[in-house]
Amino acid sequence: MNRAQRQLSEGILMTDQYQLTMAQLYFRQGLHTMPAQFDYFYRKNPSYGSHQAGYTILAGTGSLLQWMTEERFTADEIACLRRQTGRSGTPLFREDFLDWLLQEGNFAQIRIDGLQEGRVAHPTVPLLTVRGPFAMAQILETPLLNHMNFQTLIATKASRMRQAAGGRPILEFGLRRAQGYGGNPGVRGALIGGADASSNVGISHALGFDPKGTHAHSMVQAFAALGSGELGAFRAYAEIYPDDCLLLVDTINTLESGIPNAIRVFEELRARGHRPVGIRLDSGDLAYLTLKAAQALNGAGFADTTIVLSNQLDEMVIWQILSQIRAEAPKLGLEPEALIRRLVFGVGTALITSQGAAALDGVYKLTAVNDKGQWLPAIKISETPGKTINPGAKQTWRLYDQRDRAVCDVLAMEDEELDKMAELQLHHPVDSHVQRTLRREELSRVERLRVALPHGPDAPPEETIAEMRLRRDQDLEHLDDGVKRMVNPHLYHVSLTRRLWELKQKLVRERSFPRSKSNTP
Amino acid sequence: MNRAQRQLSEGILMTDQYQLTMAQLYFRQGLHTMPAQFDYFYRKNPSYGSHQAGYTILAGTGSLLQWMTEERFTADEIACLRRQTGRSGTPLFREDFLDWLLQEGNFAQIRIDGLQEGRVAHPTVPLLTVRGPFAMAQILETPLLNHMNFQTLIATKASRMRQAAGGRPILEFGLRRAQGYGGNPGVRGALIGGADASSNVGISHALGFDPKGTHAHSMVQAFAALGSGELGAFRAYAEIYPDDCLLLVDTINTLESGIPNAIRVFEELRARGHRPVGIRLDSGDLAYLTLKAAQALNGAGFADTTIVLSNQLDEMVIWQILSQIRAEAPKLGLEPEALIRRLVFGVGTALITSQGAAALDGVYKLTAVNDKGQWLPAIKISETPGKTINPGAKQTWRLYDQRDRAVCDVLAMEDEELDKMAELQLHHPVDSHVQRTLRREELSRVERLRVALPHGPDAPPEETIAEMRLRRDQDLEHLDDGVKRMVNPHLYHVSLTRRLWELKQKLVRERSFPRSKSNTP
Repeated sequence: MNRAQRQLSEGILMTDQYQLTMAQLYFRQGLHTMPAQFDYFYRKNPSYGSHQAGYTILAGTGSLLQWMTEERFTADEIACLRRQTGRSGTPLFREDFLDWLLQEGNFAQIRIDGLQEGRVAHPTVPLLTVRGPFAMAQILETPLLNHMNFQTLIATKASRMRQAAGGRPILEFGLRRAQGYGGNPGVRGALIGGADASSNVGISHALGFDPKGTHAHSMVQAFAALGSGELGAFRAYAEIYPDDCLLLVDTINTLESGIPNAIRVFEELRARGHRPVGIRLDSGDLAYLTLKAAQALNGAGFADTTIVLSNQLDEMVIWQILSQIRAEAPKLGLEPEALIRRLVFGVGTALITSQGAAALDGVYKLTAVNDKGQWLPAIKISETPGKTINPGAKQTWRLYDQRDRAVCDVLAMEDEELDKMAELQLHHPVDSHVQRTLRREELSRVERLRVALPHGPDAPPEETIAEMRLRRDQDLEHLDDGVKRMVNPHLYHVSLTRRLWELKQKLVRERSFPRSKSNTP
Repeated sequence: MNRAQRQLSEGILMTDQYQLTMAQLYFRQGLHTMPAQFDYFYRKNPSYGSHQAGYTILAGTGSLLQWMTEERFTADEIACLRRQTGRSGTPLFREDFLDWLLQEGNFAQIRIDGLQEGRVAHPTVPLLTVRGPFAMAQILETPLLNHMNFQTLIATKASRMRQAAGGRPILEFGLRRAQGYGGNPGVRGALIGGADASSNVGISHALGFDPKGTHAHSMVQAFAALGSGELGAFRAYAEIYPDDCLLLVDTINTLESGIPNAIRVFEELRARGHRPVGIRLDSGDLAYLTLKAAQALNGAGFADTTIVLSNQLDEMVIWQILSQIRAEAPKLGLEPEALIRRLVFGVGTALITSQGAAALDGVYKLTAVNDKGQWLPAIKISETPGKTINPGAKQTWRLYDQRDRAVCDVLAMEDEELDKMAELQLHHPVDSHVQRTLRREELSRVERLRVALPHGPDAPPEETIAEMRLRRDQDLEHLDDGVKRMVNPHLYHVSLTRRLWELKQKLVRERSFPRSKSNTP
């Protein structure tokens, strides 16, 4: 798999075969340019086993929009498709369709509206709405899901780690166990959701961040094999990076070798007028070693040095380390909050793979087609009522209570102006018995969530990650603490307006089969 | 994140920052061209929770070697590094080091030996051994781990699915929930390990495979919204793909609508002289629906049509579906094995994310440095004895018993010729009490596992996936059934020769601290 193969596989052919066979069918039927609408949403917040997310942080849109701007069918892609044959041995794709793809096979006619990156998002809410020519909107399904599902998954995990770390920095270290080149968009998601920086050099530079890192065990091992030992390795490091000296202290023995050698080198640096940065602990009982390291460093007059912790950290381990430090530091004469303010967390595999929930179940569903100027709602009815999609053209709103807490996201028909209504009649998305009425004066704000997300050569430049982080922090501030809880979070409500609910019921009645005729025995 | 950013992040900067800060240190110390040896190995087979792998299928090397051939430091990468500053505000990387990187920053001097792709592999065995200039071998750590860990992880999961499916085809459908662009190398791993084909268009073409797929629910939904219903959608499909007609039957109601409509269209196709391919089931109780679908299809004279199953399949679900069909088919008058021969499994998220074990714990450890022509073994001692690395230059062997079953992998010193020894003294890698002696006549074969894996412009062309699959099938044939078991597999033995074991003990004695001085309380 060389660079040319990689580029082919990351271009417009990064889609599923059935999108192309369907696109040819729409072409043949004259439906390929019919406007269609697809909604992107996910069904369940990630559950990591013993702990669960109560929300997600939306990410991926910027990458998706750039991809849509740059990728299109060219002669290379057409040549691939031309080679494919069906069972009868004849070409699977006919020349008139391939000609059309070569001429019109791009995303210029597709319009996307949705939530901006960094926003707090909830299940079943359409996060992106795609409208455009049926064939190209269909081909977009797979790359859209790929970009959105993965970056949102990682942004969400990073947000949880940030929350567990109580504001202490999170460094992303996961490239070595990441999913191939997926490690790079994963870092983007992590930076949007909660990581402060990454060790991944290329993507950090690409996104305007300084990559982070100092040295590994191998450096100490090499000096040991050559006869200079750990102290020789540390001295060599301090000589070259006197103002950036952060030493990994667990190659031989943390307490008996690494920390004493680090302190010796720090004293030498101080004598030369430099300020050592700190140490990194990468194995053992990290809470215990943090306390012992702090005692030793404080005793030598290095009470302001950083202590970086790494090695299989996830949000629950970070949470537990902080709890343990708070409980045990006072017994050792250490001020726990001062110690915690020195900590930095390096997280690897658990972040980049979203440990415990390796995929977000986001889907892309046809919700309307436009026949001769009229939008017709489309529906897919599931045996599981919660999986029956919400049809038609919709708008999404967020309601805030008098304390300015977000209390509910509401799916409405596109022409319903919730911010102008005196009273909102809200329905549970599935259970017809659950409904409630909210009066406008009970709410402080009614916010329209969806905005236009332009792409193409004339679109404004991609947002900065700093802007997305600001949006994330604002949304998290307005989110109930119970929903943010890391274990068994509160359920955040998502409701339908009465009009949308009635449309859904009507379509279900019209298009479904009797319930008794079930797909299960 | 546009294409230029993507390409920067997939080039030689797809590494960790500390590899570069260490490389500069080696440069400054005159150690950058010192030959160093790193071993790639993993510690534990993937455990998926309630089930576990007893082996892995090695994959990723071909991609890695191509990457090493094509990637090097150019002015673009140097410009990124030049921008970085330390805490004092001065550049982190000095110009003489950057000049060296620009001139010599490539992998031409690196030699890799190891197991070939598709081979069955086991924990702690060096699967690749890297030798070359210390600085570039260090920079290679992250990209090597990224390529090998992920593709091996996915190849292993695919091998398990193939085993569960008992030889029935496995189609990879996971791109929509894959980890960004990592979905593409993931498909390569899947094709090596056990998938027959993929729905992913771009990577399939890049690797010389025909992508697979027919249509989705959205096609049926669109025809329903436009008034032609499911039957209209199926007829449109059959008209365009009369010899490749495989219909998704669960958009409305599988038994009441999808299957009857499919049979009607199949009858129309038959009347026109075409042979319908089959149906796909994507929801509900797949075993039950398979039986009901087979009854209906057989009744209409379509007993040879394919039934594709998809929807959250993993190896355990596939296994269970087959068990259930074997138990229940006879009650319905169906011959179970004939039915099973019609099945094809489409697997998505569970394969591309290696559900239950989202990362392989492969590491890259310095095992020797060459000081003035002499190789000095390097070691890293861990509190956990099993994590202490096996030092020095080694060869890897596989022993086969008289039934030609692989019984043990053996790590030896590089100059030990196990195939010429009358008697092998083998040590447990950790427990000094466990050792055994094997006489040559107890063995049918003693196989040297490691071969040269060339890269660079003069290397032979990349192997085909067909060659790797052949190797996989041979290795699996020689592997004990207990080791292949999907739940609680037998432990496959990995031993050290006496000479290697003694070297390890000597280094541990020389370089470690007393055990009582522990890193844990």
